[in-house]
Amino acid sequence: MLMDDMGWGDLGVFGHPAKETPNLDKMAAEGLLLPDFYSANPLCSPSRAALLTGRLPIRNGFYSDNAHARNAYTPQTIVGGIPDEEILFPELLQKTGYTNKIIGKWHLGQQAQYHPLLHGFDEWFGAPNCHFGPFDDKSQPNIPVYRNAEMIGRYYEEFEITKNGESNLTQMYTQEATDFIYRLSSDKQPFLLYWAVDATHDPLYASKKFLGTSQRGLYGDAMRELDWGVGEILKALETAQVLDNTLVIFSSDNGAATYAKTGGGSNGPFLCGKETTLEGGMREPTIAYWPGKIKPGVSHQLGSLMDIFTTTLDLAGVELPKDRIIDGVNLAPVLFGNESIIDRPIFYYRGDELMAVRVQDYKAHLWTWSNSLEEYHRGTDFCPGQDVANLTNHDQQNHTAQPILIHLGRDPGEKFHISPSSAEYKQMMPRILEVVNKHHSEMKKGKPQLNYCDSSVMNWAPPGCEKMNKCLPIPKSKEYKCTWTH
Amino acid sequence: MLMDDMGWGDLGVFGHPAKETPNLDKMAAEGLLLPDFYSANPLCSPSRAALLTGRLPIRNGFYSDNAHARNAYTPQTIVGGIPDEEILFPELLQKTGYTNKIIGKWHLGQQAQYHPLLHGFDEWFGAPNCHFGPFDDKSQPNIPVYRNAEMIGRYYEEFEITKNGESNLTQMYTQEATDFIYRLSSDKQPFLLYWAVDATHDPLYASKKFLGTSQRGLYGDAMRELDWGVGEILKALETAQVLDNTLVIFSSDNGAATYAKTGGGSNGPFLCGKETTLEGGMREPTIAYWPGKIKPGVSHQLGSLMDIFTTTLDLAGVELPKDRIIDGVNLAPVLFGNESIIDRPIFYYRGDELMAVRVQDYKAHLWTWSNSLEEYHRGTDFCPGQDVANLTNHDQQNHTAQPILIHLGRDPGEKFHISPSSAEYKQMMPRILEVVNKHHSEMKKGKPQLNYCDSSVMNWAPPGCEKMNKCLPIPKSKEYKCTWTH
Ligand SMILES: [Ca+2]
Ligand SMILES: [Ca+2]
Repeated sequence: MLMDDMGWGDLGVFGHPAKETPNLDKMAAEGLLLPDFYSANPLCSPSRAALLTGRLPIRNGFYSDNAHARNAYTPQTIVGGIPDEEILFPELLQKTGYTNKIIGKWHLGQQAQYHPLLHGFDEWFGAPNCHFGPFDDKSQPNIPVYRNAEMIGRYYEEFEITKNGESNLTQMYTQEATDFIYRLSSDKQPFLLYWAVDATHDPLYASKKFLGTSQRGLYGDAMRELDWGVGEILKALETAQVLDNTLVIFSSDNGAATYAKTGGGSNGPFLCGKETTLEGGMREPTIAYWPGKIKPGVSHQLGSLMDIFTTTLDLAGVELPKDRIIDGVNLAPVLFGNESIIDRPIFYYRGDELMAVRVQDYKAHLWTWSNSLEEYHRGTDFCPGQDVANLTNHDQQNHTAQPILIHLGRDPGEKFHISPSSAEYKQMMPRILEVVNKHHSEMKKGKPQLNYCDSSVMNWAPPGCEKMNKCLPIPKSKEYKCTWTH
Repeated sequence: MLMDDMGWGDLGVFGHPAKETPNLDKMAAEGLLLPDFYSANPLCSPSRAALLTGRLPIRNGFYSDNAHARNAYTPQTIVGGIPDEEILFPELLQKTGYTNKIIGKWHLGQQAQYHPLLHGFDEWFGAPNCHFGPFDDKSQPNIPVYRNAEMIGRYYEEFEITKNGESNLTQMYTQEATDFIYRLSSDKQPFLLYWAVDATHDPLYASKKFLGTSQRGLYGDAMRELDWGVGEILKALETAQVLDNTLVIFSSDNGAATYAKTGGGSNGPFLCGKETTLEGGMREPTIAYWPGKIKPGVSHQLGSLMDIFTTTLDLAGVELPKDRIIDGVNLAPVLFGNESIIDRPIFYYRGDELMAVRVQDYKAHLWTWSNSLEEYHRGTDFCPGQDVANLTNHDQQNHTAQPILIHLGRDPGEKFHISPSSAEYKQMMPRILEVVNKHHSEMKKGKPQLNYCDSSVMNWAPPGCEKMNKCLPIPKSKEYKCTWTH
C-alpha cells in the first residue's frame, strides 16, 4: 500500500493530533511500526521506480542531469521511462507464478513501451500519471485511466474529480483491491497487489461520504477515506483467509507536500517536506503487518522502500539478480524476529547528487538546498514556518569538505548542528565519509531517463481511445530538454 | 502525575520517533488520550497554582504586573506564594477524609506560610523549587528537600545530582509513591497522590540504570525513567487492588523547553515551546486512565489542568466553592462517556495579559511575542528553527483590533493565518470576540503574588535545618521588584 505525498506525521500512531486513522493505528498496534523508514527519493516517480527495481534512481535512470541536484519526474511530456533492462520485482514474482496487479498511479513513463503490463504486472486499474488537471484537451490531454492494456476514460471526464474535491476514486481503488484479493484467493493463486492510491496528492479528493468529515479539512477527508480503504483491504484478506499468508506493507512515496500549506499533509516533528532531502522529505509512515508472523512492536531498523524488492523476493524464494547492484536490503531477519538491527546506511539523493547520508542515528548533509530564492519569492516554500541555517537555504551549498552533522535521536527536527570541533563529530564523520566514499567509488550511474520532454508523447491517443472515440490529434514531435527548477 | 517541562511530542503515543515510552503508550491504549489538553500557563508556578486552585493565575495571584505580559514564577527569592484565601482541591478532599501526599516539586512559594502542609497536603516528600544548582550556599542556598514539615537535606548535598546528570531522585519519588499507595490502600483510606516529578526539567537527570539508554541522550534517559515510574505506580495500584477505584491523570505543567535545544523535550508538530502562548507552550501530553470506568479511546475535548480541580471534587462528591469563579470544568461527563464534547474556551495567558483564546478548533491570537531581540541575540530562542510572521516575533505585537486566526485542525503548527477578508474569519471572529469580551468583563484579578523579591526569603534556614546542622545565616531583608525579562 503506497500512499502519495502522505507525511510521516499524518497517522494517529505517528502523532497527528487529529487521531483520525483508526484502521492504520490498529494495523500498527498489531504489526511492526517502522519510524525510521525512508523513501529512496523525495519525489514520486524516482521513488516508485526505486521501490519496484530495488535500486536507487541514480542507478535505474530515474533522474536528470540537465542541471545539478534537480528533482525530476514523469510529467505527460516525458520521453523516458522505466528502461527495459531494469528488472522489477513483479517480473520475477510473475515467473514463479504470482499474479500481479497495480491499482492506481504508475508514474514510470507515459509512452507505450513503459506500460506496467510490459513490466511485470498482469492487471492494472489506474493511471500513468498524477491526476493533475483539468486540462482543455487541446494544449494537454486529460490523464487516461486504464483497465489493463487499454484506457477506459480520462480523469475529469469519465472519472470525475470536482472542483470542491469530490471523487469516487478511492472507493473504486478499494473495490478493485478487495475484488482482486477475493478472486485470487478463491483460486488459491499467489498474488501481489500494489495499491498505489493518490487521494492525498494535490488536487485532493474524497467521496461524498467522507467530504467534510475531518478536523483537517479536505486533506483529512482524503486521509480518512484511505484509512477506511486500508481497513477494507485487511478485512478482505481476513475474510479470504489469506491474512496468515500475506505480508502487508504500508508506506508513502515521499514526504508531505509542505508547500501546499493546509492542503498538504504533516511531517510531524521533521524538517521541511517533499522535494527536499531533509527528514520531512523522505521519512515515511511505515507499517509491516503479518499477524502470527510479524510480532507487534516498534523497530528502529533503518529501512527503505527499496527493501520491499529484496524482502519480497526473499520471501518468494527468488534469487536476486546478480548482474547489478541492488540497494534494497532483505529485512526478513528483522521483520520475523531473528535479528534486531541490520546496520546499513540511507542515501538521500536529489537528482544527480548525493545530498546526505544517514549512518545509524547520525545524518551528514553533504549538499543542502530547499529551492531557489526566485521560486521562494514566487510563493513556493518547501519549509513553511521553518528556518534552519545552512539546511533550509535557497542557494545550493556544498558541504562536502565539512558536512553538517545531525544526531537524529537527540534532534529529529535537524535544528542543532553538531560542532565540527566536537569529539563526537571527529569520531563519527570519518566513519560516515568512508560509507560515502565507498558508495561513490562503486557507483555506475544509469542513463538519465528524465532529461528530454516532447509534447507529442502526451496521452493524446492511448491504446483503447479509438473504441471510446476519445483519440486526440497528436502534435508533431519536438524533443527538448526538460526544465527542472528545483 | 504532573511532569515538568515535558512536551506534547515526547510520548510515543503522541508521535515521538524514538517510541521509548512503553508504559505511557500502554496507559494511553487502555485509557483516554486527550490530544487537546492544555496547561493554564506556559510556566511552572502559575500552571501548578492553577491546577490546585482550579483558577487562572490571573485570578489566584500567580502573575506579576511589574511589566506587560511577563512570565513570572517562584524563584527562591520570591516573596509571594499561594494566598491563604485560595482554596486548593486537596484542602476540600482532606475535609471528606482523604489523605493527600505531594511527591516532588511544589513551586507555590518558598516562605513558611506557603508550605504544602498548610495548603491541603498531609504528607510531602520533595522540594519547594526546581533543582537548580549547584550553588555555593553563600550567594544562594541549595534547595531543601522536605519530608513533611521539615527539611531532610538539600539538592547537590544529601540529594545528589551529578554534573553528568546522575541522580536517584526519580527512583526515590517512585518508591515514595508506591509506598504511599500500598499504605493507604491497606488501611482502606481514600487518598490523593500528586506525583510532581521533575527529571525532565533542566538540569536533567536519570539514575545509573537509565543513563545512556535512550536514543535521545540525557533527556530521553529521564523520559525513560519517568515512563518506568508510571509503570511502577500503575502496577502498585493494581497490586493494591485499588485500580478500579482510582482516577489516574497524566499530564505536564507546560510545553517542552525548546530553548534548551537537545536538552529539552519535543512539542511534536506544534510551534515554539515553554514561555510562549503558541501551542508548543501550553498543549500537554495528557492521558486519563481508569480501567472499567473510562473507555479506551481518544477525546478531542478541550481540557485544562484546572479541570482536575473540578472533576476531582465532583468525583468525591464535594461541592464547588460558590464565592469565586472556578475556571476548571467538570470533565466527568466526557471521561465517563455520557457526553461527547463540552463546548468551552481555552484562555492563553502570559503574566497579566490574555494573549490568545481557543474556541472549538479556532485559535485567535490577541497579542504575540516570543522574547525580546536582546534576549534572542544572547542565545535564548523559544522557537528554534521556526519562524512564522507575527507569531514568533521579538517585539510585543497587539493584534486585539484584528486578531490572528488559526484553524488548529487544518493547521496545528500555526503556520497559516486565515485571511481577515475571508468568509471564515468574518464568521468566526465575532463569536470568539464575544467569548473574549465576556471573559474580560467578568474578570476580577487577584493581587499579583510575583512582583516582589527578597534574598532574605531564600531557603537559608528551613524548618528542620537545626537538627541537621544545616542552617545558613539569613541576610538582611531587602525587598525589591523582581525583574521578569520575558
Ligand atoms: Ca508523491
Ligand atoms: Ca515546568
